[in-house]
Amino acid sequence: MSFTQAHLLGIEHLHPSEITALLDLADQYVDLGRGQHKHSDALQGLTQVNMFFENSTRTQASFELAGKRLGADVMNMAMQASSIKKGETLIDTAMTLNAMHPDLLVVRHPHSGAVDLLAQKVNCAVLNAGDGRHEHPTQALLDALTIRRAKGRLHRLSIAICGDIAHSRVARSNIMLLGKMENRVRLIGPPTLMPSQINEFGCEVFEDMREGLKDVDVVMMLRLQKERMDGGFIPSEREYYHRYGLDAEKLSYAKPDAIVMHPGPMNRGVEIDGDIADDINRSVIQEQVEMGVAVRMAAMDLLARNRRSRPKGVMV
Amino acid sequence: MSFTQAHLLGIEHLHPSEITALLDLADQYVDLGRGQHKHSDALQGLTQVNMFFENSTRTQASFELAGKRLGADVMNMAMQASSIKKGETLIDTAMTLNAMHPDLLVVRHPHSGAVDLLAQKVNCAVLNAGDGRHEHPTQALLDALTIRRAKGRLHRLSIAICGDIAHSRVARSNIMLLGKMENRVRLIGPPTLMPSQINEFGCEVFEDMREGLKDVDVVMMLRLQKERMDGGFIPSEREYYHRYGLDAEKLSYAKPDAIVMHPGPMNRGVEIDGDIADDINRSVIQEQVEMGVAVRMAAMDLLARNRRSRPKGVMV
Amino acid sequence: MSFTQAHLLGIEHLHPSEITALLDLADQYVDLGRGQHKHSDALQGLTQVNMFFENSTRTQASFELAGKRLGADVMNMAMQASSIKKGETLIDTAMTLNAMHPDLLVVRHPHSGAVDLLAQKVNCAVLNAGDGRHEHPTQALLDALTIRRAKGRLHRLSIAICGDIAHSRVARSNIMLLGKMENRVRLIGPPTLMPSQINEFGCEVFEDMREGLKDVDVVMMLRLQKERMDGGFIPSEREYYHRYGLDAEKLSYAKPDAIVMHPGPMNRGVEIDGDIADDINRSVIQEQVEMGVAVRMAAMDLLARNRRSRPKGVMV
Repeated sequence: MSFTQAHLLGIEHLHPSEITALLDLADQYVDLGRGQHKHSDALQGLTQVNMFFENSTRTQASFELAGKRLGADVMNMAMQASSIKKGETLIDTAMTLNAMHPDLLVVRHPHSGAVDLLAQKVNCAVLNAGDGRHEHPTQALLDALTIRRAKGRLHRLSIAICGDIAHSRVARSNIMLLGKMENRVRLIGPPTLMPSQINEFGCEVFEDMREGLKDVDVVMMLRLQKERMDGGFIPSEREYYHRYGLDAEKLSYAKPDAIVMHPGPMNRGVEIDGDIADDINRSVIQEQVEMGVAVRMAAMDLLARNRRSRPKGVMV
Repeated sequence: MSFTQAHLLGIEHLHPSEITALLDLADQYVDLGRGQHKHSDALQGLTQVNMFFENSTRTQASFELAGKRLGADVMNMAMQASSIKKGETLIDTAMTLNAMHPDLLVVRHPHSGAVDLLAQKVNCAVLNAGDGRHEHPTQALLDALTIRRAKGRLHRLSIAICGDIAHSRVARSNIMLLGKMENRVRLIGPPTLMPSQINEFGCEVFEDMREGLKDVDVVMMLRLQKERMDGGFIPSEREYYHRYGLDAEKLSYAKPDAIVMHPGPMNRGVEIDGDIADDINRSVIQEQVEMGVAVRMAAMDLLARNRRSRPKGVMV
Repeated sequence: MSFTQAHLLGIEHLHPSEITALLDLADQYVDLGRGQHKHSDALQGLTQVNMFFENSTRTQASFELAGKRLGADVMNMAMQASSIKKGETLIDTAMTLNAMHPDLLVVRHPHSGAVDLLAQKVNCAVLNAGDGRHEHPTQALLDALTIRRAKGRLHRLSIAICGDIAHSRVARSNIMLLGKMENRVRLIGPPTLMPSQINEFGCEVFEDMREGLKDVDVVMMLRLQKERMDGGFIPSEREYYHRYGLDAEKLSYAKPDAIVMHPGPMNRGVEIDGDIADDINRSVIQEQVEMGVAVRMAAMDLLARNRRSRPKGVMV
């Protein structure tokens, strides 16, 4: 079974063999990005539109570069702009765009489920670039590629996801992906930053960093998402760093060759110590960014191939 | 006579045979947009610059896609940005840009006549993407293409333009185009939203929707442009919808096969009922957006051809 | 000796023969820009990223057009946006971008020295598009090309730089370049707008315009940079224009064939009279803009060539 999806809306819908197929192709695009000629014609003649209803310089840049390097005609639409202000609905915006016949539509939206809804209304392949607290599938895929390249495999690893799990679509997508690939996932953080449906995830939960990090292969830190904390408990940064910030002492509980990850942008001195972040023997944070472009190239390439081989109109 | 214009500043300057030539070419670009490979080299090696002094996500996107699909090097300039703030005049901005040798300059500006003025100062082909209350020629051309494809002809039709005529450059350009092609145009709206020079247009004017819509082939709704109403009468949305909003009952006065149009973005429940807007048997609102890209491709292609065949510097 | 730089951080680092090599190549790109087909493949397969931490419509447009015309995949990053707001450091931003493997990174930053710092952290060629009050090398190079084409040479000329020298990176870069090419540079302006280290520049300094302009070949006006004057002396525009604004009477002290330059955007009626700015027999202000694109094409082309011929990783 190869990659048969019409959209990339979440990790939830992917079969493990599809994840593997996508990562295998992404490996090839890593090589392209490291070469002197970083351009292919895989998406030549196709139109990619990036609709970001939430600002994200790095994710949008990653998708934009991915599409341009594959030869697509790429257009960014700043959705804070006029149309939304003029009172147009999300669906009207989507239908308008759809009428321009894009082939690939990359969407970030502050509301969970908005991207799924949108995918039902358009004729093109939709990629979820993050929706509310729901999913951020390309982030989980780039994390998976980073782990597979660093550890030589993506199964039977012990992986700790640490920090603000409750507000994190990154955590949600990673938990699903890593579970599907048969890894053991631990969640570490204060109870106030754990999601209420924590038991459904099938992960071990820890309140104490040292206990949770014990002998893990991968330490995945999360950004403290203050902008998503509406009311409720906001820890002081100092207290948070003391208890949950990754520093050398806490990291010493993990395996000696454990790698350190962070989806960026980092709050240095809040959830992670700057020296750990910069330690090229432990931190793979820059590799994650590099893998991001490759994974997005692979995802868009596979979706475009599926679209080409399908009779017109069947995808809606 | 084929298309001989140096610029596309308004419908006012176009001969009916030029309109037909442009729409014929646009028909071909509709096919390109619907195919799997949406890219041509018609504008390869040329530079298109979009200068929007007023925000317009959809019109800018339409021009941007049109240019990219034709292989131009396309650059967007956000003109709210630094230069204007730094006190530079419109003419200085235009001259600066002109010195970079663009081939096609797409301009939207809040002041009527600003685009004409600009066209006199630069060496490239200028396309008016909307100037104040003056003209919006590509909107009228895309409406014309939509009508021609839906009705099989673009003459001897009875067409109602409804709503806020006074503030609408869309209405102005459409009235001129539809008149040139020998259609009967009716204007429907409250007297307070009718332009003062209403008699010059040579249209029948109606205050009552049911009376005005009687037996028309095309119902063209306009957006209630609250942002353009400086002082003066602002109707309540509820009252406006009651009297001028298009719903099934009012539409029943038109011909049974009458089509419904709207330039977007729509105020659902203000000037148009949501169900009518979404009724694929009556509404051609999505087709209008699709035709927008095709018409802009045709316009830029024709202007670029004229430019190539002209001795240098003659266009100023 | 040809152009051997890994980055273009400032005029300070350039050998006169490198300046000449760059201007010679730029002359060829002027011809490309004036032709009907304005596109080459010199940067095909390479990625150019423009990171502007300060708004600059015209400089960014010039770099963007230059890269697109050379076939690069060009990406603009609006750095006022999310990442910076989210508290990421400049270095983290740079490292993130670096991980996406750009080949050419164009940076404007409000702090002097920020671009140099950034260049030490990334693997790609960095071009300084203006940093604080430090340098703006492509502006000095485009001014040099404009002078060379107007005067037939770039040495033994008498050149007056007039106005707000203290706040001007344009002045700094020009003083260095013109000095390296063995010209006589005069600085004219009120003492309050002269830099404190004025004697290090080795220029003649004048307080009186008529005295300073006497028999010069080139009159280079500067923009009055009110936005950079934090506290301190702010002259009234009227008084400034009276004493230092270039008008026909003051210009009559220069050589009869002296050319008039301004980096733009101009404050007409403040530092320069509008009629002088528009006088095509004296003003080369539009030519400066045209040369800007050509000089940036040449700079990026040369840096990319150096990068290709170097073993990987050596540039850091």
